[in-house]
Amino acid sequence: MSIAQQQKKTTVRRMLYMNLDPSAWPKAGLSWLNILIAVLVVICVVSVVLETEPLLEQNYSRIFLVINQFFLYIFTIEYIVRVWVMAEHHAFKGPFGRIKYMCTLPALIDLVTVLPFWFGAGSEILLLRILRLLRILKLARIPAVSLALRRIFCALSSRKMELLLSVFFAFLLMLIAAITLYLLEGSAQPEAFGSIPRALWWGMATLTTVGYGDVFPVTSLGKVAAGLYAFAGIGLVAMPTGIFAAAMTEVIGKKSDLSDVIEQSK
Amino acid sequence: MSIAQQQKKTTVRRMLYMNLDPSAWPKAGLSWLNILIAVLVVICVVSVVLETEPLLEQNYSRIFLVINQFFLYIFTIEYIVRVWVMAEHHAFKGPFGRIKYMCTLPALIDLVTVLPFWFGAGSEILLLRILRLLRILKLARIPAVSLALRRIFCALSSRKMELLLSVFFAFLLMLIAAITLYLLEGSAQPEAFGSIPRALWWGMATLTTVGYGDVFPVTSLGKVAAGLYAFAGIGLVAMPTGIFAAAMTEVIGKKSDLSDVIEQSK
Amino acid sequence: MSIAQQQKKTTVRRMLYMNLDPSAWPKAGLSWLNILIAVLVVICVVSVVLETEPLLEQNYSRIFLVINQFFLYIFTIEYIVRVWVMAEHHAFKGPFGRIKYMCTLPALIDLVTVLPFWFGAGSEILLLRILRLLRILKLARIPAVSLALRRIFCALSSRKMELLLSVFFAFLLMLIAAITLYLLEGSAQPEAFGSIPRALWWGMATLTTVGYGDVFPVTSLGKVAAGLYAFAGIGLVAMPTGIFAAAMTEVIGKKSDLSDVIEQSK
Amino acid sequence: MSIAQQQKKTTVRRMLYMNLDPSAWPKAGLSWLNILIAVLVVICVVSVVLETEPLLEQNYSRIFLVINQFFLYIFTIEYIVRVWVMAEHHAFKGPFGRIKYMCTLPALIDLVTVLPFWFGAGSEILLLRILRLLRILKLARIPAVSLALRRIFCALSSRKMELLLSVFFAFLLMLIAAITLYLLEGSAQPEAFGSIPRALWWGMATLTTVGYGDVFPVTSLGKVAAGLYAFAGIGLVAMPTGIFAAAMTEVIGKKSDLSDVIEQSK
Repeated sequence: MSIAQQQKKTTVRRMLYMNLDPSAWPKAGLSWLNILIAVLVVICVVSVVLETEPLLEQNYSRIFLVINQFFLYIFTIEYIVRVWVMAEHHAFKGPFGRIKYMCTLPALIDLVTVLPFWFGAGSEILLLRILRLLRILKLARIPAVSLALRRIFCALSSRKMELLLSVFFAFLLMLIAAITLYLLEGSAQPEAFGSIPRALWWGMATLTTVGYGDVFPVTSLGKVAAGLYAFAGIGLVAMPTGIFAAAMTEVIGKKSDLSDVIEQSK
Repeated sequence: MSIAQQQKKTTVRRMLYMNLDPSAWPKAGLSWLNILIAVLVVICVVSVVLETEPLLEQNYSRIFLVINQFFLYIFTIEYIVRVWVMAEHHAFKGPFGRIKYMCTLPALIDLVTVLPFWFGAGSEILLLRILRLLRILKLARIPAVSLALRRIFCALSSRKMELLLSVFFAFLLMLIAAITLYLLEGSAQPEAFGSIPRALWWGMATLTTVGYGDVFPVTSLGKVAAGLYAFAGIGLVAMPTGIFAAAMTEVIGKKSDLSDVIEQSK
Repeated sequence: MSIAQQQKKTTVRRMLYMNLDPSAWPKAGLSWLNILIAVLVVICVVSVVLETEPLLEQNYSRIFLVINQFFLYIFTIEYIVRVWVMAEHHAFKGPFGRIKYMCTLPALIDLVTVLPFWFGAGSEILLLRILRLLRILKLARIPAVSLALRRIFCALSSRKMELLLSVFFAFLLMLIAAITLYLLEGSAQPEAFGSIPRALWWGMATLTTVGYGDVFPVTSLGKVAAGLYAFAGIGLVAMPTGIFAAAMTEVIGKKSDLSDVIEQSK
Repeated sequence: MSIAQQQKKTTVRRMLYMNLDPSAWPKAGLSWLNILIAVLVVICVVSVVLETEPLLEQNYSRIFLVINQFFLYIFTIEYIVRVWVMAEHHAFKGPFGRIKYMCTLPALIDLVTVLPFWFGAGSEILLLRILRLLRILKLARIPAVSLALRRIFCALSSRKMELLLSVFFAFLLMLIAAITLYLLEGSAQPEAFGSIPRALWWGMATLTTVGYGDVFPVTSLGKVAAGLYAFAGIGLVAMPTGIFAAAMTEVIGKKSDLSDVIEQSK
């Protein structure tokens, strides 16, 4: 192999590496290759989700077969290319660099979503491919997304303890509501309120205001108690919302932080 | 035609034009003619909505016929008058000005809600008249409304990325919830949880706290998981609410912007 | 009648007047007499509400009879005393002052909740007594309540237009959702989605996240559309909440206003 | 007993006391012993909750028996140790100090959750052990938790009157909604809307957006009214959320308070 060939190979590898590894991409945002992969991942997940539906699977089994084969080839090629180009990364240089890369979590996840299917794995473990969705998280490299994410997590973590307390209050209220209804309704509806765990199912549905309607009190006392707890449930929604709103107001108000974050993401 | 007649015609046209085109109206707000049209549009939409109801249509078919005829004449006259007076608008001056106007989107929408009925179109395409509702948007010309609208859109667009992220988190949570319940409940209730798309229907109803109650888990494990996801669903409501509340606080706090907007809307 | 007797009568009348008319009460808050009346009004409303229940009415009809007679006497005495003492009020002085007072709205409401029962009116118009609930509004005279009320109304009125717009958006979204489901589900479920008004019932239940579960789409397309609208419904809750939260933040932030209000309420 | 023994006993007692009484613990947070007790209390509560379930109780009655015996011994030992070490506390010094301690509320609650079971009390009063959950509240001694708790309670108490008013408005709206539906739907559905108390059950489910779906209007007028009240119900959720969000924003904004609280909790 001549030096020219060698050089050409390195150039191709370098270019592919820069396109595949978001941290090596010189411009803001993601490379077109990574955006394409993100789109393919979304299509793959939608396909996996739809394939679990028996009615669709029966009628369009051949289409799903083609799609699955297509993604198997695509993901296999992607995996091989990634292993090949990772030698460009400073952490995976040297003779054992590629094996080192293959042992990282992202590489193992990629392998897991590819390997079983070459050994005849059926559609029942196709669900593994949903793990590819983690690839989407790389979109967080886009500066605007990263800034917004940082604001949300900053708001959540600055009021972490208040939010945990509101979750604790919610569970406490649910427990008290369940015990009350167990005592008031247990004899009238043993099937639905005959034990605290059963009453907790009602308590959950009521306090989160989901209200499936499969269980609800029928006695007068039970209805009065349920009504009062349902009203208290509004506070259960209001508390985390209010805490998060206040935290966001605080985070947005800190203009200095904002510019720091923008500078860092540049 | 004498000059006096010509002048009179111009004066009538000018007056009608100023009354019909909100941008030509010299005072704040809308002209009485435009308000009247807005009211007629609302009545027309209510009538169209009610006419789809078979019980009403059977008993009051003659009343609906009269109303439809009335609106056909009104809207036709309005269309013709609009075309006629648009020569006053600087953009539609000249010999082909009116044809140019007739090719604009608003004029085409007006035509579509009128023309088919002259050629015997039945009530089945009466729904087209709901497009007239777009006319209501002209109320946004009222300064107070325009200022409020601008505040809301300013708040939404300043936190666009955070809101999009919370929508993304919501869909992700829904997908994870659906996969969990598909795995836990799929065998117990194949009709409701036998595939991920089916479980998504449950996930949607639970996480948005709508809770129709047509599907819900029946196994113990499924109920525990559903309860935890329902609690997580509160965060799904809290996140966009908190982000929007913080954005509104920010927008309202900017007094300078406010006066700018007021000045612009004058 | 001697001067002493005359004077004594005036003193009693003056004292009763000061106790009955909140604006004449020299101290902060309400007089004990007015608080007693407020409590009686609440008991009366609870009794009226419970009496509509056939099961209670059958078993405890005599108790309700006694309670009703009791309130009839109490309210009649109150009415007569009020008319008598109102001569102390500067606006109702002079020979026709009392007749003038009897023609005011509060006096007429009081009369309407008393008079019919002296002429043998049955329990069917007992509901009239709920009008007495308006009397509770006088609690707003307590400075702390009045300040809180003022803050809420100040917040609501400062963002009136934004809140109205969010109501408008909500109705628009509901209309669009109903039309969509009418088109997608109308043929599959004519009973529930066979007309736009019927689909509006579903749209209301879904977008407000009430979710009775009496109607819901059954076709795949209908379910997908319903899911998307249910998610949009979260925005419908988030928008007014966010606007009101921002308005409250603004109102609370204005410390100067607060002290003004406190001063005014003194 | 020699002095050395005496001293050793005192040292053990002192050490146990410092570990058991959170206020005597010299470091920040809770002692490991108290954290262990908190964990045991949570396990005990979970066990009590699960034991009410007949299906579990039948199959695992022996496991529950063992767990109950285990907690009986643990809690008895804990009680005796607490009484013994409390002599270290300055308030319970002296000959009658321990009796004085045994008469305090926490000691009586501890006794009540232990004593009956030594006298053969069955599982039916096992629910008493849930009172032990109060022990968890001692976690509030951890500075970060105490600060967060203080912020939440500070926010709630600073806007106490506004929150109470929003609860009052909610009840008023519910009453008006119930009366409306009682009048509109009472004759069509006497079972569900035949009295105001019955209509209140519907009103509660609708305005809190729980929507069990056991009762809902069927007449056209009833549905229109229900729809409008359901929309008004959004305001019912928005009002306390907005008030609490504004209060939290205010509390967080007061940086001075924060440092005060941190200093106090040191």
